[in-house]
Amino acid sequence: MQQCCDAYAQAGFGGVSVWRNVVAPNEGGVGLAEAVKIVKGSGLQVPAYVRGGFFPAADAAKRQEAIDHNKQVLDEAAALGAEQVVLVVGAVPGLPLDEARKQVANGIAACLPHAQQAGVKLSIEPLHPMYAGDKSCINRMAEAREICERLQSPWLGIALDVYHCWWDPDLEVEIRLAGEQGTLLGYHVCDWRLETRHLLTDRGLMGDGCIDIAGITQMVRATGFAGLAEVEVFSEQYWAMDQDQYLELIAQRCG
Amino acid sequence: MQQCCDAYAQAGFGGVSVWRNVVAPNEGGVGLAEAVKIVKGSGLQVPAYVRGGFFPAADAAKRQEAIDHNKQVLDEAAALGAEQVVLVVGAVPGLPLDEARKQVANGIAACLPHAQQAGVKLSIEPLHPMYAGDKSCINRMAEAREICERLQSPWLGIALDVYHCWWDPDLEVEIRLAGEQGTLLGYHVCDWRLETRHLLTDRGLMGDGCIDIAGITQMVRATGFAGLAEVEVFSEQYWAMDQDQYLELIAQRCG
Repeated sequence: MQQCCDAYAQAGFGGVSVWRNVVAPNEGGVGLAEAVKIVKGSGLQVPAYVRGGFFPAADAAKRQEAIDHNKQVLDEAAALGAEQVVLVVGAVPGLPLDEARKQVANGIAACLPHAQQAGVKLSIEPLHPMYAGDKSCINRMAEAREICERLQSPWLGIALDVYHCWWDPDLEVEIRLAGEQGTLLGYHVCDWRLETRHLLTDRGLMGDGCIDIAGITQMVRATGFAGLAEVEVFSEQYWAMDQDQYLELIAQRCG
Repeated sequence: MQQCCDAYAQAGFGGVSVWRNVVAPNEGGVGLAEAVKIVKGSGLQVPAYVRGGFFPAADAAKRQEAIDHNKQVLDEAAALGAEQVVLVVGAVPGLPLDEARKQVANGIAACLPHAQQAGVKLSIEPLHPMYAGDKSCINRMAEAREICERLQSPWLGIALDVYHCWWDPDLEVEIRLAGEQGTLLGYHVCDWRLETRHLLTDRGLMGDGCIDIAGITQMVRATGFAGLAEVEVFSEQYWAMDQDQYLELIAQRCG
């Protein structure tokens, strides 16, 4: 983590979103105190702490566990100075999607007072429909917007990732609406490889694929969104590269 | 093809949708005359001839070629006694999706008089958003419905495949609308494997995955749809099985 933050700051990046697995000791992380020390020392902004969510479950006790867990994640995010906790909302095979969606809205509602208390926003990240089976029952910006409209909280918004939403004919309208409603909290970039080799770990770096990233970025910036664009590229291919060279390549592709 | 049709009829299946690659000699098929002889001899219905479409292209000459090709496909479908030609509408990397969608509507419009003449319907098959890069710029039933509403032809409708559309929160509404508008022309079943290993050739057989097929089938039948449910499972795993045993397994899973 120290090495990453040093290298990002050195390369002129403005921030780093922190994944919980590099923080939480039970996930192999450095521990919260150390993580806080590293990010504060780096001078980097922390757009997001990643990730909360996974609200739906077949039984009520598990749903309460998820809510409690999300509150803890919010506290950790506050300690890290993160603006938001990104929510991968969850889905459960066998649980009807409409029921899962209700449980997601209920779970988020139960966390909102804690978000306010922590001073950290919750952002729903719609995930690509290919993840509807077990990762997210919210797959389009419209569905995230509906929850935001229902819960009406300044502590709730949407994180838009081009990978998940680029194909959606309603994308432009939804970005504009999110801008108007003040719910556009995060913007993630990468690319869709035409010959995707793996559903989770074969994202492209900007320019590798077919997404009109410049066009979407323009829509996002037109709303007045002033946050950092976050590069998020799950990729066995890029993870296998020399990571200093990879960072240089990322900087080029951001240009 | 003969072997398949004999086996399907023997196993009590009511029909077979014919893929063009088993018909067209330039794709390795048996030739149209022979294909007609085989299907007519089998007594099987032919819900669909698969597939037309692929309308968008960067230049006008290629778009006209696609239209001409689709007309030929309609003629072949008529010879086979197929009720419909299924359209995988196409998408072109680098061509903006909204432009591609316009070209699709224009291409279909140009084919409709020929469809009427041939007595064969065209059905738009919305493809899963993971195919938006190069196979289909129409990814939800709502988008297919919009084209049907615009073109207003009794020769145009929608083929619903649970694999592509199961995740869509608007699915129930769209199925009902398609029923009301008389545009529900085809119904394809298979399953979504949670650990999908390949984007094209790892579909599940009904029961292997997480789709509520019984629920969707009920919605489809509630519209009055009286067509055959078509089993369509692109799967390296099942293709590698003994195909007689596979046919028995399919029959069980249809039960």
